[in-house]
Amino acid sequence: MAALAQALPAGAGLSPFFKAASIAIVGASDDITKIGGRPVHMLIKHGYAGAVYPINPKGGVIQGLPAYASVRDTPAAPELAILAVPASATPAALRDCAARGTKAAIVLSAGFTEAGPAGAALQADLVTIAREHGMRVLGPNCLGAVNVADRLIGSFSIALEEHMPPAGHAGIVSQSGNVGSHTMQSVARRGMGVSRFIATGNEADVDVADGIAALAEDPDTRIILCCMETCRDAAKLISALQRARELGKPVIVLKIGSTEKGQQAAASHTGALTGSDAVIDAVFRRHGVLRVRSVEALIDIGHAASLLMPTRLPHNDAVTLVAASGGFGIMMADAMSEAGLALPALAPLTQQRILDAVPTASTGNPVDASAQMSSRPDILLKMLTALLDDPSDSALVLFMSLSLYNTRLRGIYLEALAQVRASHPGRLLMIISQGPADAIEQINALGIPVFSSIDAAATGLAGLARLGQLRAANAPQRALPAAEPVDPIVFQNEFHAKQALGKVGIDVPHEMIAGDADAAVRAADAIGYPVVLKIASEDVAHKTEAGGVMLNVANAQAVRDAHARILANVARHAPTARIDGVLVAPMLQGGTEMIAGVSQDPVFGPIVMVGMGGIYAEVLNDVAVQAAPVTEDEALAMIRSLKMFPILDGARGQAKADIAAAARSVARLSEFAFRHRDDVSDIDMNPILVRPQGQGVVVLDALMIPRAAPAL
Amino acid sequence: MAALAQALPAGAGLSPFFKAASIAIVGASDDITKIGGRPVHMLIKHGYAGAVYPINPKGGVIQGLPAYASVRDTPAAPELAILAVPASATPAALRDCAARGTKAAIVLSAGFTEAGPAGAALQADLVTIAREHGMRVLGPNCLGAVNVADRLIGSFSIALEEHMPPAGHAGIVSQSGNVGSHTMQSVARRGMGVSRFIATGNEADVDVADGIAALAEDPDTRIILCCMETCRDAAKLISALQRARELGKPVIVLKIGSTEKGQQAAASHTGALTGSDAVIDAVFRRHGVLRVRSVEALIDIGHAASLLMPTRLPHNDAVTLVAASGGFGIMMADAMSEAGLALPALAPLTQQRILDAVPTASTGNPVDASAQMSSRPDILLKMLTALLDDPSDSALVLFMSLSLYNTRLRGIYLEALAQVRASHPGRLLMIISQGPADAIEQINALGIPVFSSIDAAATGLAGLARLGQLRAANAPQRALPAAEPVDPIVFQNEFHAKQALGKVGIDVPHEMIAGDADAAVRAADAIGYPVVLKIASEDVAHKTEAGGVMLNVANAQAVRDAHARILANVARHAPTARIDGVLVAPMLQGGTEMIAGVSQDPVFGPIVMVGMGGIYAEVLNDVAVQAAPVTEDEALAMIRSLKMFPILDGARGQAKADIAAAARSVARLSEFAFRHRDDVSDIDMNPILVRPQGQGVVVLDALMIPRAAPAL
Repeated sequence: MAALAQALPAGAGLSPFFKAASIAIVGASDDITKIGGRPVHMLIKHGYAGAVYPINPKGGVIQGLPAYASVRDTPAAPELAILAVPASATPAALRDCAARGTKAAIVLSAGFTEAGPAGAALQADLVTIAREHGMRVLGPNCLGAVNVADRLIGSFSIALEEHMPPAGHAGIVSQSGNVGSHTMQSVARRGMGVSRFIATGNEADVDVADGIAALAEDPDTRIILCCMETCRDAAKLISALQRARELGKPVIVLKIGSTEKGQQAAASHTGALTGSDAVIDAVFRRHGVLRVRSVEALIDIGHAASLLMPTRLPHNDAVTLVAASGGFGIMMADAMSEAGLALPALAPLTQQRILDAVPTASTGNPVDASAQMSSRPDILLKMLTALLDDPSDSALVLFMSLSLYNTRLRGIYLEALAQVRASHPGRLLMIISQGPADAIEQINALGIPVFSSIDAAATGLAGLARLGQLRAANAPQRALPAAEPVDPIVFQNEFHAKQALGKVGIDVPHEMIAGDADAAVRAADAIGYPVVLKIASEDVAHKTEAGGVMLNVANAQAVRDAHARILANVARHAPTARIDGVLVAPMLQGGTEMIAGVSQDPVFGPIVMVGMGGIYAEVLNDVAVQAAPVTEDEALAMIRSLKMFPILDGARGQAKADIAAAARSVARLSEFAFRHRDDVSDIDMNPILVRPQGQGVVVLDALMIPRAAPAL
Repeated sequence: MAALAQALPAGAGLSPFFKAASIAIVGASDDITKIGGRPVHMLIKHGYAGAVYPINPKGGVIQGLPAYASVRDTPAAPELAILAVPASATPAALRDCAARGTKAAIVLSAGFTEAGPAGAALQADLVTIAREHGMRVLGPNCLGAVNVADRLIGSFSIALEEHMPPAGHAGIVSQSGNVGSHTMQSVARRGMGVSRFIATGNEADVDVADGIAALAEDPDTRIILCCMETCRDAAKLISALQRARELGKPVIVLKIGSTEKGQQAAASHTGALTGSDAVIDAVFRRHGVLRVRSVEALIDIGHAASLLMPTRLPHNDAVTLVAASGGFGIMMADAMSEAGLALPALAPLTQQRILDAVPTASTGNPVDASAQMSSRPDILLKMLTALLDDPSDSALVLFMSLSLYNTRLRGIYLEALAQVRASHPGRLLMIISQGPADAIEQINALGIPVFSSIDAAATGLAGLARLGQLRAANAPQRALPAAEPVDPIVFQNEFHAKQALGKVGIDVPHEMIAGDADAAVRAADAIGYPVVLKIASEDVAHKTEAGGVMLNVANAQAVRDAHARILANVARHAPTARIDGVLVAPMLQGGTEMIAGVSQDPVFGPIVMVGMGGIYAEVLNDVAVQAAPVTEDEALAMIRSLKMFPILDGARGQAKADIAAAARSVARLSEFAFRHRDDVSDIDMNPILVRPQGQGVVVLDALMIPRAAPAL
């Protein structure tokens, strides 16, 4: 399956799913509640203009249309086939379509991979047939595809049973049919138009990435709302997201299954700390996707973005808040701050003009405008005009509570909003209000988003602000060539692992392996006292526990003693361990410990991780990840995103740590891992001693693990 | 003000606000949009049965009622007065009412403390008058009080302008008029009845605690929804909450202003780590209050609780989830787990019965029942019956997406829900659905709460579960007598502070103060080597920075050297410091460092704090607080609530720490602080060395700070 997907560019060949001029429904039924009956019914009911060919072995007439015993009998080759026959009959049906020259098929039926090994074999058959004939297959076990404007309904979604959504500019791509269908209906209930809907189900061939790419290229689609469960092909997803960014189409993704845990039995420390959810989060961020955490946020933010695009999306993180109540003002301020937004002070002139409108107002941010604000249209207009004239480029959020349910207040608010929208067409204005649906629609029609709660507005505005930033940022794209495989000695002990890292520009200690006590003393003399002695053995994973580490060794005699003790301890603790010697290293102190490393994600390949050292950070899982390679800027952003970052940034009067040097090391590590993705699996640099600003970092210990299978 | 409030039990004398048989409106107006016109209008419009006396110097007729020039002229003494005259005229008006024998007054007007010093003086006058005459005053600058069933409207709330809420059992207490009014309207829009509304505004006399106590005693009120900004009187609040708990009335509080920071300039470490928001959080928890974070959660949970009371509130943290979609199932599972709920597996028989109903269902938890579930009423009934028959006592949450908008599905769901509600009257069943208001109302009428989103349902169910637990828990109440004041020497240095703590049962090291080098050696010999030497001086706060600490001192000669070095360092670092001597203590290691301490909250008095030691915990503000004294069980719960608790609990193969001993020390510390609340302000025990289970704890360093003013 992956091979087929990789063979085609993202979204290639999907056009018939949305633009077919003729559709065969294989397994068509007169019963409109059946999956073979409902598409025929809806194509007719909603007015699809192309040819509809019901296919049923009995022939005759189905829902008033002539039916054909086989797809071979249709007057022309259908451009799209909808297969609604039992799973076991699907491969033959698909083969018939292929023979007829149909280039795209939607398999609605269930009973494939999700149903066990026999179903999986059937699904594999579908892929083979599709590949042989250059067909694209959507599904199986999916809710199909819809082009709203053209009434092309390749779906049995119950959401379309009574009404079609209005035609518009939101494209919906969902792996889950139910979640996609819910999104389509909810979007429509807001009065927001839909361009295309595509639900990918089992994703035997077409996946969510294909859907994103197709909607990115679709001129009717301006914004892409996506519900995703799994990513099967990193390269395809990334190319789809890049295409959407290039074409200026925001992509908002609800990723389902976020509490997924990291692999607890991972071979490396890094592997244990790197959950696949954090990886996809990082990939989304890099490629301009706004990730949301609920279907409500997907719909709220999608709707708001569509009302604000293209010119009124937030330009920054700043927001000005105004309410007729101090209590709601405080709640808004709390929620907006928690969502990461800033509340700048108003200009003195603005404050004066607010007081001119409402003498009892408090002119901080939030503005407590008191109930007087809405007592007369002219007062409200003066207040809002003053706020929108403020030189800050902040978003203005107006809390209206339940005022829209009051006929008199509804009139006052709507009049003022219409006037300021006209007088300040470029400013971002948002409302928090509940109220009758028609009043909300009137406000939306002014291009003003309405959120139903303070929390939804805070999540929404923060999301919109991120969307602006994400779209502006450049995706760092670097295709590094693969390097020559590493010398397998790097997997043997920390000394060789560090030597390899040192060669790519990562600072490691000046240290030596000593074969005997004399060599250890010579090494210590060369390095300078005090030194550290550590056992070097690929069979001793926990050196301290084995008595294999001696710190702060002060002179030649102490080196001899420590050398002897280490060998004795290890001989007792691990009698069969192969000993490479004893590592002599400088005793380094003074700084903060961090950890960085690499592990392999099954989809996204080598992942680089950075975090604070020590058990505290580990208990809190306080690490940042990104797909390798990362730039130094990206590594710096990763370090800054740690919860513990204040410790590196001079908390409690400590010296600021050299995070630039740490970021450099992480970037070099990520490049090394990317270039060696075929022969090196996991890398731990643990701990990294990060010294005060300007003094660099040193990797005190390191571990490399080879890939299990030889590189291809 | 505080003196008056303390003089009266919580809620005493509030009855006229809700039950007055006659009401004078001072400053009454014919203009129904004015604050002196609106209450008259609404009392008449909504059918208040008592006497209404408009008071206006012009006399005549107001809104069809005879008006009186003064409250002295009314046919009888009004039981309640509503004052709607300018602030400056309010004291005289209140005095008139007092003279007439009126025992309760609502001051609607603004222009008091919130308007500056002149207003504050007017407010103080109101308190003086009230105290002189044994009156209760609500406000000023408040939205007043309402008894819904009796149509007693002592308010100008715009929420009552068009309709009254239905009469019912929800009592609403709010400091903010707007937030309270919004809550009342929202509750009513859900079809939930309201008993009383009271908005306390500036709280010159009556405060939120009085309101809670009055509603606890009110037979019409079964649940109390509260919006609170500040607590002015800890004892009154606690007594009100205890009364509500005794009478079985759940209290749900929205505390406004939650991002308040700790006092950064605090004298002690503990003071800097203890924010007042965390204190009120702890007090709420102890006294059975469910705290919510948004007005929506207040309304959602209040409404759901009222539908489930008294028998169907959650008995545990377990939930069974069912959806027609795998995607929504995963999202529900994520949200519920994140909210702290458990998802137990279904019994084998239940699983079999689910498969009998829907052969393609997946029978984990969440149950993916597929769209088949709702294809026929009998299938849905079979499915829900199987789930409700499951031997677990979990809550059942059914996700319905937008099905209620579909006429056919609406019928199927409503029929099945009515049947299972009848067949399983004691089981908690909850719905997640959007839909037409009348469909939601039909489901609510079955006693089934409906949440509009997965997140709201997760927050809601977790809140309901907590409400059950909070009501069940016993509030530990201990009135410890005040102790004799401490010897002021405890404030002088760590030695004496630790000695005082040792006397109340807290483990401190066996250590001595040495006046000279010989004494230091004798002390070290007695204690046993290695030892630690530390400068003892009330003028050296940062001992390590002053060179005043020497660790791991191994023998007599080393003690002499260390003693000399410490004195020299301190002489250089702090030449004027008074030196009490040098502390000689055993060198203790091996364990985890914690911190505990006490600081003073302006409202709740001595607060005890416990957290992990070190800078990591501090950066994350990972501490737990509670008002002193705490029991050992409470202290243990505080320790278990730390984010870093896994470190104490054996994370990464470490030994489990002796948290029982740590909890004992925290409890003893809290008792000490409570008994010495008049003479000891802050205490730090930092660090506390917590050893492995069974091996106890030792307080390695301690600091006590006296109260600034002498105890009264």
